[in-house]
Amino acid sequence: MRMYDIIMKKRNGGSLSGEEIRWMIGEYTAGRIPDYQMSAFLMAVYFRGMGEDETLELTMAMARSGEMLDLSGIQGIKVDKHSTGGVGDKTSLALTPMVAACGIRVAKMSGRGLGHTGGTIDKLESFRGFSTEISTEQFEEQVNRIGISIMGQTADLAPADKKLYALRDVTATVDQMALIASSIMSKKLAAGADAIVLDVKTGSGAFMKTEEDAKALAREMVRIGNGAGKHTIAIVSEMGQPLGNAVGNALEVQEAIATLRGEGPEDFTELCLTLGSCMLVAGKKAGTTQEAREMLQKVIEDGSALNKLAEFVQAQGGDAGQVWHPETLPAAAIHMPVPAPEDGYIQAIQCEEVGNCSMILGGGRVTKDSVLDLSVGLILHKKVGDPVKQGEAMATIYANDPEKAKEAAARYTAACRIGQQPVEKQKLIKAVIQ
Amino acid sequence: MRMYDIIMKKRNGGSLSGEEIRWMIGEYTAGRIPDYQMSAFLMAVYFRGMGEDETLELTMAMARSGEMLDLSGIQGIKVDKHSTGGVGDKTSLALTPMVAACGIRVAKMSGRGLGHTGGTIDKLESFRGFSTEISTEQFEEQVNRIGISIMGQTADLAPADKKLYALRDVTATVDQMALIASSIMSKKLAAGADAIVLDVKTGSGAFMKTEEDAKALAREMVRIGNGAGKHTIAIVSEMGQPLGNAVGNALEVQEAIATLRGEGPEDFTELCLTLGSCMLVAGKKAGTTQEAREMLQKVIEDGSALNKLAEFVQAQGGDAGQVWHPETLPAAAIHMPVPAPEDGYIQAIQCEEVGNCSMILGGGRVTKDSVLDLSVGLILHKKVGDPVKQGEAMATIYANDPEKAKEAAARYTAACRIGQQPVEKQKLIKAVIQ
Repeated sequence: MRMYDIIMKKRNGGSLSGEEIRWMIGEYTAGRIPDYQMSAFLMAVYFRGMGEDETLELTMAMARSGEMLDLSGIQGIKVDKHSTGGVGDKTSLALTPMVAACGIRVAKMSGRGLGHTGGTIDKLESFRGFSTEISTEQFEEQVNRIGISIMGQTADLAPADKKLYALRDVTATVDQMALIASSIMSKKLAAGADAIVLDVKTGSGAFMKTEEDAKALAREMVRIGNGAGKHTIAIVSEMGQPLGNAVGNALEVQEAIATLRGEGPEDFTELCLTLGSCMLVAGKKAGTTQEAREMLQKVIEDGSALNKLAEFVQAQGGDAGQVWHPETLPAAAIHMPVPAPEDGYIQAIQCEEVGNCSMILGGGRVTKDSVLDLSVGLILHKKVGDPVKQGEAMATIYANDPEKAKEAAARYTAACRIGQQPVEKQKLIKAVIQ
Repeated sequence: MRMYDIIMKKRNGGSLSGEEIRWMIGEYTAGRIPDYQMSAFLMAVYFRGMGEDETLELTMAMARSGEMLDLSGIQGIKVDKHSTGGVGDKTSLALTPMVAACGIRVAKMSGRGLGHTGGTIDKLESFRGFSTEISTEQFEEQVNRIGISIMGQTADLAPADKKLYALRDVTATVDQMALIASSIMSKKLAAGADAIVLDVKTGSGAFMKTEEDAKALAREMVRIGNGAGKHTIAIVSEMGQPLGNAVGNALEVQEAIATLRGEGPEDFTELCLTLGSCMLVAGKKAGTTQEAREMLQKVIEDGSALNKLAEFVQAQGGDAGQVWHPETLPAAAIHMPVPAPEDGYIQAIQCEEVGNCSMILGGGRVTKDSVLDLSVGLILHKKVGDPVKQGEAMATIYANDPEKAKEAAARYTAACRIGQQPVEKQKLIKAVIQ
């Protein structure tokens, strides 16, 4: 087989066989196909697309390019969850204890944040002593014992995807549906869960700007997951503004704790209940989403979800006392309100800019090596559709540096558009696809 | 400027500015843009194409990426000729002495052959002592003195094109009209002539299989040439079978000499007269092609064209006596006829296979380092449309190795299709575009 012929076949609109795709991914991972041939192939895929079989084969080949996690030592149905990313998305923090309290096994790999988006591991490290650098044995043992564990992603999970993604990133071939879907799903399949629940974000703060594209991506990933023999459900959810009110590591942990107490923001609570219902159904703990929803509401009301978070934090070396006393989490010295410049209604909040505000304050990574200030961030008091009066606080900046606080406040003000017309609130859950 | 943005712009169907193209070619030639970005760009060009301005800018940028030959030391209008390549194409050997005898200045760079196509320099080296390794000074002096010189291509002529072509060759991005046209024209522009005459081949033995594509390429190159301020004329000519009867280095030289004596094959003579007429018109030695044609016929009849070849061979160190005694050129020991397997008419001769026969015999290069046997090759006795009787010689193989001769004869037999229906002869000159 020759890479030249594979490029030519795809360029001319042909379909690659499973054998061709497996050979290509194997040879590329081993460094025997040069980047300049692969990037020409990726651009041909951008224009010609990939068929259903090709996309599934590509996903499987990338999943198998490195270690395939074996979670067979964990009893029951393991359910994984993945979000395509957004600002203020602390879902894993609240959702995993909720579903674990309902008996779902959550064996999850998570990542750190980069740029304007945060990462679950960074947020969890707000708990004093908490560590995700645990062995696979400890990971399995913990899931079996308490139903939940989160570890950092091992280097050898789907290395072909890692190499391909880095190449796509510099050759303008990222935004192609089959390539996006296979990239996400290859990592999920390699991570070894039995069922997968996906949260595909749409709107100005998401990778998929239109609902139509988000739905297409969701459908593609559900098809791949089911094709690979994993029960897969996707929801499409709004990311036209930050999720919940808190943006910043410790601030988001506090909001997750409040949510587990039944005192969280409405949109964030709703998202957790919707995703949690899907996970309970996929994990066969509930027959219907309505039944699942009631189970989740119960573990919030009776405190067992919050207990599960404390158990989880303690199991991974963290100070569980902070779950009961969130005021002891890292706290910023400066609290600076951001006043509304005029009367009106919030028309829009530029999601990415809110993430950038947190990054300016030190809460996000500019480069891979940035050291984070876990205490900083923002709390939004007004969301899209809310009325504001001139001088009223739209948000509060939490900072440790007065100059950075001022800069973040100015950018936050610019990121909010105020108008005189009332605005209809966007529906949070756009679709459930299975 | 960033290569990423340029790839994205082209991918999305945008037009690049002259500044962007110049920057890209400059940085790529200097090794500051990696191949994997350039190959993604080239694939995007394959799908999106390039506009007229972009193609001209690309051509100029590649032409200027290395040395631009300065032929201002040569008096008069310098006319260059280029063929897109074929089998048995010994045009330069006969044409350049013809037009030089009419007063045109021919300062030409030529190449060596590779694979199934031959090269002018290899053919010229059939003359004992002939060399194209001459200095630029000698080159200029010779053109001024006798009107004709041919030198090997210097390494630094359009290095951007050389680098880009090598990349296109391994990434399935060769067959794109704007890229083909700019590649050819960048070298012609860098070679410094005032006017350019192009022979675009079409048919099974040519790069452009259809007449339509060949005409489009011809139009594109004429547009580029004129856009760059060079009077440019292109013809489109048939390459459905080998040109003339001889294929092989010394054999082709003999056929060129016969043509200069007025005894050449009809098709080859016609091509030389057509291209020569264009060169005389472009070089302002004749007002009309009819007038030019008569001038060319006259220099054949009065022997001055053949004299010019002898003068040219002698000037570059060759044995001019061989022009008068072509039987002293390298000659093969074995002459093996290839008999027709049945009665009928020659329906088709696979051009590329005839080139391969010559290569098998040792007359063509398998790799860049192959040492050639200049004496071997084939003489075709029957061309497409000719009637043949079983056992009659369709061609003669000239070889020095009996095994290779047998192999070549078998392949030649397979390359000829004989049928019972008479076949209409193809028109040689399909179009003249200016």
